[in-house]
Amino acid sequence: MKAIVIHGPKDLRISDRAVAPPGDGQVLVDVGAGGICGSDLHYYHDGGFGTVRVREPMVLGHEVAGTVAAVGAGVGRVGPGDRIAINPSRPCHGCVYCREAKYNHCLNMRFYGSAMPFPHIQGAFQQQLLVDEQQCVPVGTEASVNEAALSEPFSVALHALRQAGPLAGKHVLVTGCGPIGALCAVAARYYGALTVTITDIVSSPLAVARTLGVDEAIDVAAEPERLERYAAGKGHFHVVVEASGAQPAIEAALRVIRPRGTLVQVGVGGNVTLPLGAIVSREVEIRGSFRFHEEFEWAASLIASRRVDLSPLISGVFPVQDAIAAFEQASDRARAMKVQIAFQ
Amino acid sequence: MKAIVIHGPKDLRISDRAVAPPGDGQVLVDVGAGGICGSDLHYYHDGGFGTVRVREPMVLGHEVAGTVAAVGAGVGRVGPGDRIAINPSRPCHGCVYCREAKYNHCLNMRFYGSAMPFPHIQGAFQQQLLVDEQQCVPVGTEASVNEAALSEPFSVALHALRQAGPLAGKHVLVTGCGPIGALCAVAARYYGALTVTITDIVSSPLAVARTLGVDEAIDVAAEPERLERYAAGKGHFHVVVEASGAQPAIEAALRVIRPRGTLVQVGVGGNVTLPLGAIVSREVEIRGSFRFHEEFEWAASLIASRRVDLSPLISGVFPVQDAIAAFEQASDRARAMKVQIAFQ
Amino acid sequence: MKAIVIHGPKDLRISDRAVAPPGDGQVLVDVGAGGICGSDLHYYHDGGFGTVRVREPMVLGHEVAGTVAAVGAGVGRVGPGDRIAINPSRPCHGCVYCREAKYNHCLNMRFYGSAMPFPHIQGAFQQQLLVDEQQCVPVGTEASVNEAALSEPFSVALHALRQAGPLAGKHVLVTGCGPIGALCAVAARYYGALTVTITDIVSSPLAVARTLGVDEAIDVAAEPERLERYAAGKGHFHVVVEASGAQPAIEAALRVIRPRGTLVQVGVGGNVTLPLGAIVSREVEIRGSFRFHEEFEWAASLIASRRVDLSPLISGVFPVQDAIAAFEQASDRARAMKVQIAFQ
Amino acid sequence: MKAIVIHGPKDLRISDRAVAPPGDGQVLVDVGAGGICGSDLHYYHDGGFGTVRVREPMVLGHEVAGTVAAVGAGVGRVGPGDRIAINPSRPCHGCVYCREAKYNHCLNMRFYGSAMPFPHIQGAFQQQLLVDEQQCVPVGTEASVNEAALSEPFSVALHALRQAGPLAGKHVLVTGCGPIGALCAVAARYYGALTVTITDIVSSPLAVARTLGVDEAIDVAAEPERLERYAAGKGHFHVVVEASGAQPAIEAALRVIRPRGTLVQVGVGGNVTLPLGAIVSREVEIRGSFRFHEEFEWAASLIASRRVDLSPLISGVFPVQDAIAAFEQASDRARAMKVQIAFQ
Repeated sequence: MKAIVIHGPKDLRISDRAVAPPGDGQVLVDVGAGGICGSDLHYYHDGGFGTVRVREPMVLGHEVAGTVAAVGAGVGRVGPGDRIAINPSRPCHGCVYCREAKYNHCLNMRFYGSAMPFPHIQGAFQQQLLVDEQQCVPVGTEASVNEAALSEPFSVALHALRQAGPLAGKHVLVTGCGPIGALCAVAARYYGALTVTITDIVSSPLAVARTLGVDEAIDVAAEPERLERYAAGKGHFHVVVEASGAQPAIEAALRVIRPRGTLVQVGVGGNVTLPLGAIVSREVEIRGSFRFHEEFEWAASLIASRRVDLSPLISGVFPVQDAIAAFEQASDRARAMKVQIAFQ
Repeated sequence: MKAIVIHGPKDLRISDRAVAPPGDGQVLVDVGAGGICGSDLHYYHDGGFGTVRVREPMVLGHEVAGTVAAVGAGVGRVGPGDRIAINPSRPCHGCVYCREAKYNHCLNMRFYGSAMPFPHIQGAFQQQLLVDEQQCVPVGTEASVNEAALSEPFSVALHALRQAGPLAGKHVLVTGCGPIGALCAVAARYYGALTVTITDIVSSPLAVARTLGVDEAIDVAAEPERLERYAAGKGHFHVVVEASGAQPAIEAALRVIRPRGTLVQVGVGGNVTLPLGAIVSREVEIRGSFRFHEEFEWAASLIASRRVDLSPLISGVFPVQDAIAAFEQASDRARAMKVQIAFQ
Repeated sequence: MKAIVIHGPKDLRISDRAVAPPGDGQVLVDVGAGGICGSDLHYYHDGGFGTVRVREPMVLGHEVAGTVAAVGAGVGRVGPGDRIAINPSRPCHGCVYCREAKYNHCLNMRFYGSAMPFPHIQGAFQQQLLVDEQQCVPVGTEASVNEAALSEPFSVALHALRQAGPLAGKHVLVTGCGPIGALCAVAARYYGALTVTITDIVSSPLAVARTLGVDEAIDVAAEPERLERYAAGKGHFHVVVEASGAQPAIEAALRVIRPRGTLVQVGVGGNVTLPLGAIVSREVEIRGSFRFHEEFEWAASLIASRRVDLSPLISGVFPVQDAIAAFEQASDRARAMKVQIAFQ
Repeated sequence: MKAIVIHGPKDLRISDRAVAPPGDGQVLVDVGAGGICGSDLHYYHDGGFGTVRVREPMVLGHEVAGTVAAVGAGVGRVGPGDRIAINPSRPCHGCVYCREAKYNHCLNMRFYGSAMPFPHIQGAFQQQLLVDEQQCVPVGTEASVNEAALSEPFSVALHALRQAGPLAGKHVLVTGCGPIGALCAVAARYYGALTVTITDIVSSPLAVARTLGVDEAIDVAAEPERLERYAAGKGHFHVVVEASGAQPAIEAALRVIRPRGTLVQVGVGGNVTLPLGAIVSREVEIRGSFRFHEEFEWAASLIASRRVDLSPLISGVFPVQDAIAAFEQASDRARAMKVQIAFQ
């Protein structure tokens, strides 16, 4: 069985790995599609991010869907042949935060493809993957396995928009039109925002966003004044979803957000310098959004029923042996929104 | 009639001013006490703050209480001889934010002693002040006029704590033990926080805070580790009220706040550099808090009934002719929590 | 100019009335369509409801849209020829509730076609109507004037669903498939409910609901067990929108709602007998929902942009001279969802 | 060891029972005080309530505090000699509601002294009780064991007031001045309500409430108009805590509650008939409140630190052999607020 393994910066290898048969409550999955995420790219280019570094070979990937190959004893939710999305979130259910049902803050989270703990948590970019029954969400056959593999990033977006509170009658701005930003725009539209505006400094992802039903997509590098006009009268947007992590985007957001507006910070950069006076005098609410939990089931369900159509986000699908080409395209925002790998 | 007028940096003068008799719905007040606020000190030392500068002589002050001298036609809420707290917040009631009952965000607010608009909004440090009936909150005689003059800063604290949501079962940290920080600690206690901890880098205001019922007062300059131990296990405090505006305090707060905790930013500094990663991964909620509106009535009522005793906050009371000495003491955190001026 | 005037039970007359030219800030509208509401039917059949009775001739109607005929001085939002939806909600902007931005609770509300105050508030079923500029919401030409006339009942539904809080991941039940119930189902779907189920005891309106995108429409008279299976495990629905006002529907709702679920009561019957024990032990939240305010603009905007398609709700359109036939059809739930009158 | 056992209506016996030594993680407690609750009285008088009936002998009681006699292996939170309050709430931590941290809705709750499941859950009115470590909350020695035994009913009140949302600036009405109602008044005051009013139809418990710091205690049997004057202008109270379960009290509450006010239903009667029109047109929010969970720790902590003084609520303490006399006094509202039994 092939797996995509990171050994260090720019040292990505396709390796053979063994997989065990499913035990009690376990499911063996033929992985069909795996999407490359920003964190995978950080491991690929830099061998990690922040202070985290790969210290042993680690399988990458956590955005996967596939087909059930075999089930262990006691498994009832899925059976062989079922197409499923795989939830990569595995909290411990025993720590203080799990006890408070804040599972995404679990002190012992085992999230696929993470070099934060040692030994590292191996990822899901494998031709076969052994998972727990609870991780399996059946998705039927209406949506493709590639769409199903978007369940994880769409969960991130659904969770982020949940931080924004009800969107009834709200004008929503999304800053940053990468895959997460674009999915946040879809989620905002899905939750009934009155208008959805999205910005970026690169034009090609904005063209994709336009096909996803946003009201306005602004290239702030080319037309900064189109956003700035919303600064009049103490701002226009009730909600900003900040998906870039870039200081200029956050600064602009704080100029166009209304008093008592909510800025959901989902993009992660390093340190940013913020004008405290604006936050105070407009009583802006800034809320961090981190991963997801129950939203994974919702995301898979909305994709499975085609209540949302996320297929325009898939920029390309590469066979597993071309993983490096896939990672290279995924690194180029002008050419890639979401790049996936086909494992079969 | 004497008024305390700022002409420029360090140019504070006691001047004679005339006052008109009360018109319809107006009340003439013999001002009894006026507290010196941080913004008054900025005008005194620097002639303004940020980009705002005094461009014409301006009466300072907005924390005042007094006794009704005379009332105009149609005034029913108060009568001559009544002790009152005076609400300095005068929104327009017609703009888009007033229409949404967000009065503290009024586009045409006339807040006493503000050089932001031109002509400036003259302040309340006068021996006699003409106000609208709605600004007058009767406070009875149980509390002194000096305590009544704490209604305005206490309103700021009550408003700030309201941003924090219900405090049932919550551990609350207040960073910065100036008058607003100390009043926020009182407000947190009043709203039923399970524990209240306050920090500062100067020890004398912490001694005052201890008399106000906080559970723990930490001098983080002397004993930084006493606060840092709360960083264990992803943090301890459900709520932080940041009343210093100082970057080290905000950084420390983000280390000891629990996932999904709320940081109410009430202190205003300039720009601060924040670790976006911590805000995102802990899903911290940062909410600005700005002034107050309906809280003024609550503050006056709680002071009047002595449900809260704020008298330990008053560090000194100076006669009007010693205004400069009052401003000098108010500028020295080691000697002053709240300094007031007696106008009669 | 013709108007539809109620004089007493079953005494509906088409009368001639005069209309004044538009004054400052006023707009004269050629009414194009008017929908018959449940309250109109109460006036028609019983001459009132509860203790309210028609005591002088009163024009009925409040669900209207039309075309601007002429504008008075100072009107800028609309001009002659514009298609508009007309907001019937006219709060006083001065009472204690208006001051708190709770406009639908205005102590001096002048809602079209209401016999509660005396003299009565005359309604909008007129060929020409003089309104204030703020009541006019332009709707463009993509949606028909009949669809635009659904803005008012859709506002009621948008307001009701707002009481339910965020619908992310929620299973929503609507009990009662009259026009308001059906619109609530549309609103629930629009705000992103995970599933929407609707019930009634009459089958034909459920057939209409199925065309509006609900997941399940249950005839509880024919198949009671289909709803009752949701009672297992302390209930299934996170949100119930009760749009029937009927005791059996409320009782059933309290059996299938989950602990801490929210029941929005939008239907009005008389007294109902409720099991206090179920409300307490499941910690159900029952919230009344009354009319709307800012939701009118949202409703008109969503209809105008065809983000929702409400046309399946229109069961029939009658010319003004056939008003009585229109009221008769509107009274028969087997034949009518929403019946409208064409005024031109 | 003696235990207080119900065998049927009016058949209460003091019986000898054995107790095992503490196992791993267990604590043996010398029970010091046990309060008689309304549900205990239902078992005593009627052998049950609603459809629930005692079908085997069952130890009563769940409001207990005591002293640690011995601890099993691995117990660290408490040691022999420690005074503790005992949390009677024992959820399963595995069901769907526990997984959502809604522990009071646990599908498999084992609450002391409940005849709902069979075999019944034996109660805590025993001289010695074997509990799990997590149930033990140390309370120090400042408060008496009798005050500590009020932790359970005070938890119910703290939970109820939590349903009411923030109390900042709110006028709170408590209807029903039994032990829970009186404790709700204390909780409302503790959480910073602006005013607290309490009503009953019996005067003696109101006299107790007055000693607990309420602003107004109204005997609605003697002076109904004192409450009714609050009906003016669509009502006065932002929050009502309904602790009587009596229809006239709920009806009166719906007359004096403001639009968008919250009525927390904590009292349980049978069916009540409610005016749907008032709930809808005032957009009242009715929220059931059921038991408690994390509030037990808060209650014990507030009592232990004497931040609240609940001692005026204790009407009498009877030795275990006089249990029947205790139950008789507890049944007489004119003589009893909270009656306790001393077990040592």
